[in-house]
Amino acid sequence: MNEKGLSEKEIFSYLEDAKSEDTNYHRVLSSMCTHPHKIAIEANRLFIEANLGDLGLFFGAHRLEKEVVRMLGKLLHAPSTDIPSGDSCESSVCGYLTTGGTESNIQAVRGMKNLVTAGKKGFEGIPNVIIPESAHFSFDKVADMMGIEVRRAALDSEFRVDLASVEELINQNTIGLVGIAGNTEFGQIDPIDKLSEIALENEIFLHVDAAFGGFVIPFLEKPHPFDFEVPGVTSIAIDPHKMGLSTIPSGALLFRSPSFLDSLKVSTPYLTTKAQFTLTGTRSGASAAATYAVMKYLGYEGYRKNVQHCMQLTSKMVTEARKAGFEPLIEPVMNVVALKVPNPDLVRIQLLKRFGWNVSITRTPRALRLVLMPHNSPEDIDAFLEDLKKVTAEI
Amino acid sequence: MNEKGLSEKEIFSYLEDAKSEDTNYHRVLSSMCTHPHKIAIEANRLFIEANLGDLGLFFGAHRLEKEVVRMLGKLLHAPSTDIPSGDSCESSVCGYLTTGGTESNIQAVRGMKNLVTAGKKGFEGIPNVIIPESAHFSFDKVADMMGIEVRRAALDSEFRVDLASVEELINQNTIGLVGIAGNTEFGQIDPIDKLSEIALENEIFLHVDAAFGGFVIPFLEKPHPFDFEVPGVTSIAIDPHKMGLSTIPSGALLFRSPSFLDSLKVSTPYLTTKAQFTLTGTRSGASAAATYAVMKYLGYEGYRKNVQHCMQLTSKMVTEARKAGFEPLIEPVMNVVALKVPNPDLVRIQLLKRFGWNVSITRTPRALRLVLMPHNSPEDIDAFLEDLKKVTAEI
Repeated sequence: MNEKGLSEKEIFSYLEDAKSEDTNYHRVLSSMCTHPHKIAIEANRLFIEANLGDLGLFFGAHRLEKEVVRMLGKLLHAPSTDIPSGDSCESSVCGYLTTGGTESNIQAVRGMKNLVTAGKKGFEGIPNVIIPESAHFSFDKVADMMGIEVRRAALDSEFRVDLASVEELINQNTIGLVGIAGNTEFGQIDPIDKLSEIALENEIFLHVDAAFGGFVIPFLEKPHPFDFEVPGVTSIAIDPHKMGLSTIPSGALLFRSPSFLDSLKVSTPYLTTKAQFTLTGTRSGASAAATYAVMKYLGYEGYRKNVQHCMQLTSKMVTEARKAGFEPLIEPVMNVVALKVPNPDLVRIQLLKRFGWNVSITRTPRALRLVLMPHNSPEDIDAFLEDLKKVTAEI
Repeated sequence: MNEKGLSEKEIFSYLEDAKSEDTNYHRVLSSMCTHPHKIAIEANRLFIEANLGDLGLFFGAHRLEKEVVRMLGKLLHAPSTDIPSGDSCESSVCGYLTTGGTESNIQAVRGMKNLVTAGKKGFEGIPNVIIPESAHFSFDKVADMMGIEVRRAALDSEFRVDLASVEELINQNTIGLVGIAGNTEFGQIDPIDKLSEIALENEIFLHVDAAFGGFVIPFLEKPHPFDFEVPGVTSIAIDPHKMGLSTIPSGALLFRSPSFLDSLKVSTPYLTTKAQFTLTGTRSGASAAATYAVMKYLGYEGYRKNVQHCMQLTSKMVTEARKAGFEPLIEPVMNVVALKVPNPDLVRIQLLKRFGWNVSITRTPRALRLVLMPHNSPEDIDAFLEDLKKVTAEI
């Protein structure tokens, strides 16, 4: 920053230059985000000033937030959906708009911890939650922050959490389980119905991380049970800024019971409301408006088409890859493909350096990870596989 | 959400209606946010797709983030300023753009905890941090989340933290102090230089919460020592989305030493970078661009004028209030006034219901809290005091 300001022209010339270095998602097969929908961008702009951290001043944006939570609740089969009007939780399902999956996951575990600690005064030792080995690295942040033990259950041969491993890890300090509905690496869906049985039997919480899958699974031809329809599910993370086509930051956390949200409250003495259950204070109303707009605009039909497009690409990728001699690790259940190739780390670098493809790598086993998103086309897949053949032939 | 989507026209008609319920900051004297600057809104729009959670795809947005951290570092007298290019910390000061003061405060305390726990293997008991009683409620979230004891030091008669109280609270488990540079209730600045002496003497960290004050104090006629110029200060929270006139969410956390940032790292196996030290995953690049644009556009001169405007309003408010028989609790050091009125809670409600004024209340003692922001005018103050006289005369 200089003593005197620069001109608008100078600044936008610099910004345009910087923007030219950002991806336009051309040849991107590594991201779970994509272009936000045009209507989401317009709605975002309209509410750019709105602060959901100060509900008393932003009734309209808060109304949109409540509408979004209701729509997400309906999508995820919540028995009834509403969010509190500031400091109380009026109906049987609550939630709020977060900055994304990480905040949602952190808050879900924080809620479990607070409810258990409040309920069992005599709780001794360190509480633990059991997550699949495939869980997102945001749970490393949970472990690092919250003085909670995060126990990792093994995966079965299809990269779903292994139920026997989960049961072995449960002890008297276990407060909850986490299931992933659409894991980051394989797009695999954990057996949420079976996890639910275990959770109910042990009287512990079950959080479902559907940050990516929440806007995919309900629109698949054969949906999997993963949401509040499954009786043991107590909370769900879902990200409109991924397959929901909203703007960043747009996450959401939904609870089955209002007591969950209550457990996250702190007092807010100098705001227009009395308490706050969110992790962040000042929050983007623009994101709420963006998510409202795109959900209303697309409807179930629009999202179904979106998922169909991605699943057709996925199917094409697997079929054509097989023809070229590359097997997937599993039959994809969502729009993520993990492809067995020789020396994946080297292949990844070559694909980027020689052909500009952004792909990533699964951890165990190491394979080429490809996410087929709305920004991809059938032509992309043909071009990609041509380049993959060239690269692997020379390694 | 319906099966079929609605039209753009239907959606925007609903959105415009919702927007009409949001404040336009007319008669708002309760908020530490204000209209973002026009150039910030335009830059936000240009980078609306950018995801700082995936730096390898968004080089340009990341460049803007680094520029902003450098500018903030210079503003706050950091010895040298840079942020790591993804997974390493190259120079002696580091930082990143957060969602706001709450995330910054959480991460600062998390960093303290991790550095101390890593350094002292034999650390026993619960670590504690000492904050002033006047600290923002975000520290209640810290206490709730992190298994850390938050000890509250008393305030002196001027609502600054009482140094004797701080020293009394220090024990062998104290890992750090927090000072507030511009507290939410009184706009008061803690004696950061004295806290620094205590911190250095006890070899503990000192975090400065300048979420509000960071864009005010450097531009006051008589600046107070509060930033990295004070040798014991190890981290600072500063919010561009408050007096920095950027869009929501725009916070920042700056560290004196790269080891601090390292302590927050978790591995990120499937991204284009190897590690992540941020709290959230997916992050708004639009906010980085917005903050870059407004800082470059205003320069020191522009922010100085902005603060001058607010301080002139503050001075007018105090002078005119005194004439009307209302004394401030302290002589304001920033653009926050706490006014002694009879029955402040009732006065607050009457001001809102009868005249549409949004004001808030300090906790101890209870007084009328007024924040004089860029959206306020001298005419506002005249009108407000007229209404205040009417309301108090009838109570």
